[in-house]
Amino acid sequence: MDCFHLHILGCGSALPTKRHYPTAQIVHLRGKLFMIDCGEGSQLQFRQTGLNYNRIGDIFISHLHGDHCFGLLGMISTMGLLGRTAPLRIHARPELEELMQPHLDYFCRDLPYRVEFVSFDPDKHSLVYEDRSLEVYCFPLKHRVKSAGFLFREKARQRHIIKEMMDFYGIPLKEIPAIKEGADFVDSEGRLISNSRLTRPPKAPLSYAFCSDTAYDENIIKYIKGVDLLYYEATFGDDLAELAETTMHSTASQAAGIAHKAKVGQLVIGHYSARYTNEEILLQQARAVFPNTELADEGKRFDVAAVAENNK
Amino acid sequence: MDCFHLHILGCGSALPTKRHYPTAQIVHLRGKLFMIDCGEGSQLQFRQTGLNYNRIGDIFISHLHGDHCFGLLGMISTMGLLGRTAPLRIHARPELEELMQPHLDYFCRDLPYRVEFVSFDPDKHSLVYEDRSLEVYCFPLKHRVKSAGFLFREKARQRHIIKEMMDFYGIPLKEIPAIKEGADFVDSEGRLISNSRLTRPPKAPLSYAFCSDTAYDENIIKYIKGVDLLYYEATFGDDLAELAETTMHSTASQAAGIAHKAKVGQLVIGHYSARYTNEEILLQQARAVFPNTELADEGKRFDVAAVAENNK
Repeated sequence: MDCFHLHILGCGSALPTKRHYPTAQIVHLRGKLFMIDCGEGSQLQFRQTGLNYNRIGDIFISHLHGDHCFGLLGMISTMGLLGRTAPLRIHARPELEELMQPHLDYFCRDLPYRVEFVSFDPDKHSLVYEDRSLEVYCFPLKHRVKSAGFLFREKARQRHIIKEMMDFYGIPLKEIPAIKEGADFVDSEGRLISNSRLTRPPKAPLSYAFCSDTAYDENIIKYIKGVDLLYYEATFGDDLAELAETTMHSTASQAAGIAHKAKVGQLVIGHYSARYTNEEILLQQARAVFPNTELADEGKRFDVAAVAENNK
Repeated sequence: MDCFHLHILGCGSALPTKRHYPTAQIVHLRGKLFMIDCGEGSQLQFRQTGLNYNRIGDIFISHLHGDHCFGLLGMISTMGLLGRTAPLRIHARPELEELMQPHLDYFCRDLPYRVEFVSFDPDKHSLVYEDRSLEVYCFPLKHRVKSAGFLFREKARQRHIIKEMMDFYGIPLKEIPAIKEGADFVDSEGRLISNSRLTRPPKAPLSYAFCSDTAYDENIIKYIKGVDLLYYEATFGDDLAELAETTMHSTASQAAGIAHKAKVGQLVIGHYSARYTNEEILLQQARAVFPNTELADEGKRFDVAAVAENNK
């Protein structure tokens, strides 16, 4: 499945409301699922997506506040009940393993799979995950506790072979991998056939960035520059800018300011304070600064490829 | 508020479904709220009831399986955010305190109130809570881990004064407390006026019993004999009686068998296996044995006084 989707499982903040769950989301990239944060109730919201629990290989935890990680134990238990055998990796600052291991030993002692904690330093910009088609980086945010954002960036895709041209020049199959990577072809008589005659350029790699709880901080911009889709917490409206500063959160306008300066494709805001019974005011304030803004909502899906296409 | 209500917050079993939350419920007795079990998402479901978090003084945990206690940390954090100052007592087997204290120290270090763990032995029948109008007992169930049920029993209420008779006999105010307790009155001339002329009998004390995960076990009957309302887990239907035995759960018919033998007023079944997309079959099987059975469902409220009234 050649998709790159963001599924919102929860976009409320710490206080529960009748409409929102605490932070959790799924990045669905070509059949693999990556979870970002895992607030209480994540497993219940995940169930609503119809996606398969076992497809989640890696969970990234931005910071150790309860509204971003209290759902982990339930999620881990459920995967066990569903007979998972593949290891699950949880990427977080090292304290999480110390805290969770005694609970895993007690509540999940018969787990049929391994939970592996992979620690990273939220103060550093670093590569935390890599596979054939994707790199995930963490980068520092500015919150009351160490907090990280995550950048999901597709690796450059291979060029598309033009089959007719391959046939025309009689190019052997074994040459194809190199040509897909951009190599020219030299035939048996020494003639060079330029790669651009044999291939079409691939789609541009897509990217998504998640910015968890953070005060306004322009240092973030460099890490998320030009991403197609940006999720950014916008806990408060302009009316509570002072409270945002004290609690080291962002307002909707500040989120939009960062999106504008980072020249992202689309902004999605979430992590709404329970004070707002309707987030339209946050949307209006964000759109005044960065028009291509949308509200996150539980069950909502954002298609990163479509965002990129619309921004061409 | 002179009520005795049971609110269902969650009545699913360990595997999440699109319709049910794991176990949690609220007993609302004359303005005080008591929580029984606290599965993941309890604080979210509690929010839906419109009741006040701060009214919860005591939480009773039946056993330490995740689907009965993974919601505790979120509930505790939220009460802190809401500015609670009164202590919260959590009644459970002693292991829970050992497990939770490091998490409370890390995630809830600024809590403006005290969390007190009160331990009980789930293998014993004992009084775990008492106040002016209520006694709560725990009693042993039969599960894969030590598991307890809880009995909520109102204390005998005082007799109702008949004001006209008090005036007629000129009874001084200071005598009223004793008369409410059932004392006769002797006037200044030595004449005895029988209590039955001065008072009307109080309403019969109401009772509610919660039976958490348990295999079929007739030993339970003696602890819940004659309660007005009984909640009993009925994870499976008759089709899965063997699985019920292996996993030490009950079927709907078994739950109804216990209700019948204990001569309870009404049975409510819950803790449904995720296998059942519709619990009507469980209801039918239970009603064949004990007609006055109802299905639990999230958000449903049962009025214990009304049950008692209907069974007169």
